[in-house]
Amino acid sequence: MVYVTRKAHFSAAHRLFNPAFTDEQNEAIFDKCNNLHGHGHNYTIEVTVAGNPDPQTGYVIDLKKLSELIEEVILAKVDHKHLNFDVPELEGIIPTAENIALVFWSLLEPHITEGKLQKVRVTESDNNFAEYFG
Amino acid sequence: MVYVTRKAHFSAAHRLFNPAFTDEQNEAIFDKCNNLHGHGHNYTIEVTVAGNPDPQTGYVIDLKKLSELIEEVILAKVDHKHLNFDVPELEGIIPTAENIALVFWSLLEPHITEGKLQKVRVTESDNNFAEYFG
Amino acid sequence: MVYVTRKAHFSAAHRLFNPAFTDEQNEAIFDKCNNLHGHGHNYTIEVTVAGNPDPQTGYVIDLKKLSELIEEVILAKVDHKHLNFDVPELEGIIPTAENIALVFWSLLEPHITEGKLQKVRVTESDNNFAEYFG
Amino acid sequence: MVYVTRKAHFSAAHRLFNPAFTDEQNEAIFDKCNNLHGHGHNYTIEVTVAGNPDPQTGYVIDLKKLSELIEEVILAKVDHKHLNFDVPELEGIIPTAENIALVFWSLLEPHITEGKLQKVRVTESDNNFAEYFG
Amino acid sequence: MVYVTRKAHFSAAHRLFNPAFTDEQNEAIFDKCNNLHGHGHNYTIEVTVAGNPDPQTGYVIDLKKLSELIEEVILAKVDHKHLNFDVPELEGIIPTAENIALVFWSLLEPHITEGKLQKVRVTESDNNFAEYFG
Amino acid sequence: MVYVTRKAHFSAAHRLFNPAFTDEQNEAIFDKCNNLHGHGHNYTIEVTVAGNPDPQTGYVIDLKKLSELIEEVILAKVDHKHLNFDVPELEGIIPTAENIALVFWSLLEPHITEGKLQKVRVTESDNNFAEYFG
Repeated sequence: MVYVTRKAHFSAAHRLFNPAFTDEQNEAIFDKCNNLHGHGHNYTIEVTVAGNPDPQTGYVIDLKKLSELIEEVILAKVDHKHLNFDVPELEGIIPTAENIALVFWSLLEPHITEGKLQKVRVTESDNNFAEYFG
Repeated sequence: MVYVTRKAHFSAAHRLFNPAFTDEQNEAIFDKCNNLHGHGHNYTIEVTVAGNPDPQTGYVIDLKKLSELIEEVILAKVDHKHLNFDVPELEGIIPTAENIALVFWSLLEPHITEGKLQKVRVTESDNNFAEYFG
Repeated sequence: MVYVTRKAHFSAAHRLFNPAFTDEQNEAIFDKCNNLHGHGHNYTIEVTVAGNPDPQTGYVIDLKKLSELIEEVILAKVDHKHLNFDVPELEGIIPTAENIALVFWSLLEPHITEGKLQKVRVTESDNNFAEYFG
Repeated sequence: MVYVTRKAHFSAAHRLFNPAFTDEQNEAIFDKCNNLHGHGHNYTIEVTVAGNPDPQTGYVIDLKKLSELIEEVILAKVDHKHLNFDVPELEGIIPTAENIALVFWSLLEPHITEGKLQKVRVTESDNNFAEYFG
Repeated sequence: MVYVTRKAHFSAAHRLFNPAFTDEQNEAIFDKCNNLHGHGHNYTIEVTVAGNPDPQTGYVIDLKKLSELIEEVILAKVDHKHLNFDVPELEGIIPTAENIALVFWSLLEPHITEGKLQKVRVTESDNNFAEYFG
Repeated sequence: MVYVTRKAHFSAAHRLFNPAFTDEQNEAIFDKCNNLHGHGHNYTIEVTVAGNPDPQTGYVIDLKKLSELIEEVILAKVDHKHLNFDVPELEGIIPTAENIALVFWSLLEPHITEGKLQKVRVTESDNNFAEYFG
């Protein structure tokens, strides 16, 4: 088994708050991330696929195709968007890096037909990231 | 003359649009950056100060003090904010990297009393930045 | 299970040597790292916590709190210090990246009460790092 | 068990094509990577070794020795070379990142006598890498 | 005047040699870079344009248009190519970073009609780059 | 004129203090950087040389030779050293990034015989650097 990873980048706004909480609770729990008009990040997504390299191509999966898949299934929905308003798949979900990783996994997984989806990493800033392995 | 530079980081949302334009014009000119609810970035600001190192300290300017100044004068206003709604100094200004650099210069310049403010660089993403030298 | 990681940075001096060795042995084994007055690094520490995101917050662990914990339990002890002289927890321990990772794990682990400490990575330079998984 | 990793860098040209394919098939499958005269990358190799730190040195493996081993066993063969013409160990192998990782593992593994080779990562560009765990 | 910079990336092979030199001279002068079949790099190009931000858009130059221009005028010619064989504009020119920067300037300069081309930087590896200011 | 830059890396310990100051003054001015046993950094040095590319080689200066020069003249003196104790050229000088840049310039400048030394940048941490242009 070899693991191949493709990175992609998007820029989005988000706001962390839970409508079931009071304003005070949202403020206490989400702090700066609860700013009413939102804030934003340059996100990085890393998608790892595991498999045996095809002896005819040397590829676990063609990373150009994986890149196009990430573009269609993820970036087209989230790049230059506000994650709380513009992305149906995130509706009703607090857009933490953890939840974004879970949603991205569910968006990608049905489309990975060469090899097996192994990991989705969502990096929110230089110092923070979340990973999901299914 | 020696030039010293201090970097700092903030995360913010913004939207590029000009209220004097029609929706079609805004769309044509600002494209993805015109998304109604905004999008966001992990911005980097680099502040360069020029001067002669003080023979008693070896400092052009104490970078810890410069860092605190950037925190007070810039980051406290823009970090985890929406640049179109939350920052009085950017009111009425289209928040391109160019304009952000100009505003940051005007905020910082009066406070640089050791050495001379030489450059402000605002990096919006891995591939884009703007610089102002006064 | 989702894995979240927080990075932090510190600058420290260290010297690799074993008082049970002769000078010649220390020189032969630790080479440049055995310089009498020490040398230093910009270290990075990455702390990974595994858990299920809390449905009310979307957090495995609040990374702001994790960051404050790393600050209190680790950085306050090691940042801008000499690891051979200034850190009681490293007394009698050769401060290789391996041993630093082991000590940092033992310092952090009792305080991780949301989720479970999964990994500590200590990066010593662009080309070297050590990881401990408990 | 602690895992230590050493990175190294090399620059090489390569071309992806399979002599058993027609020109049209090579073009369809390998696209830009099939350019007749090849193209190239700044590759990074990361080698991870797992083991218990030696109580006398604090080392899983002396990373300076590991670095010299990577230099002798890998870099001396591939740095500033064309992977399709100049590297006997890659003869008859399509030089994808996946296959390069497999070959590098087989070159390194017999020489790792302190600790156990755990992972080889080959990074081809900022956005693509392959990993092999044996 | 504000200076805006756009980065772009390409992967290419090259070989440094001068047909007017003997093999021994080429070997002595270009060393590893003279490998017969070439080697390669992940190059970065940074293009800086100077100007006054347009009061209606806040742009010195629309970086999306600059990015498309770099794509058409530069990347389409050099990405995934061998610089010694595949790029007419480099014919007869030793493809050092210095010369690549000079050629890229001449390719870009006639197309910069908003603002003024200020700098082209070509980065060949993490440790080497060349800059040309016209 | 083309400007070429070569980066190099070293790890060193240092302590900021002025023997002419009282302990209280040193503490007040240099703060954490005044730790008695020192602390350390992974420093980066960037050396920029300006000149016209030689028509026969395409080089302003052979960056391999520049790299060897940096190794001999700078790194051999400072890598894995304590800058306050082990480097005669820094004796009596407070080892701030500013002063290190000035000393490195004076060490390099006499040896640059192809082209002209244009800039020395010393980077102390991800967020701090100093530059000297002569």
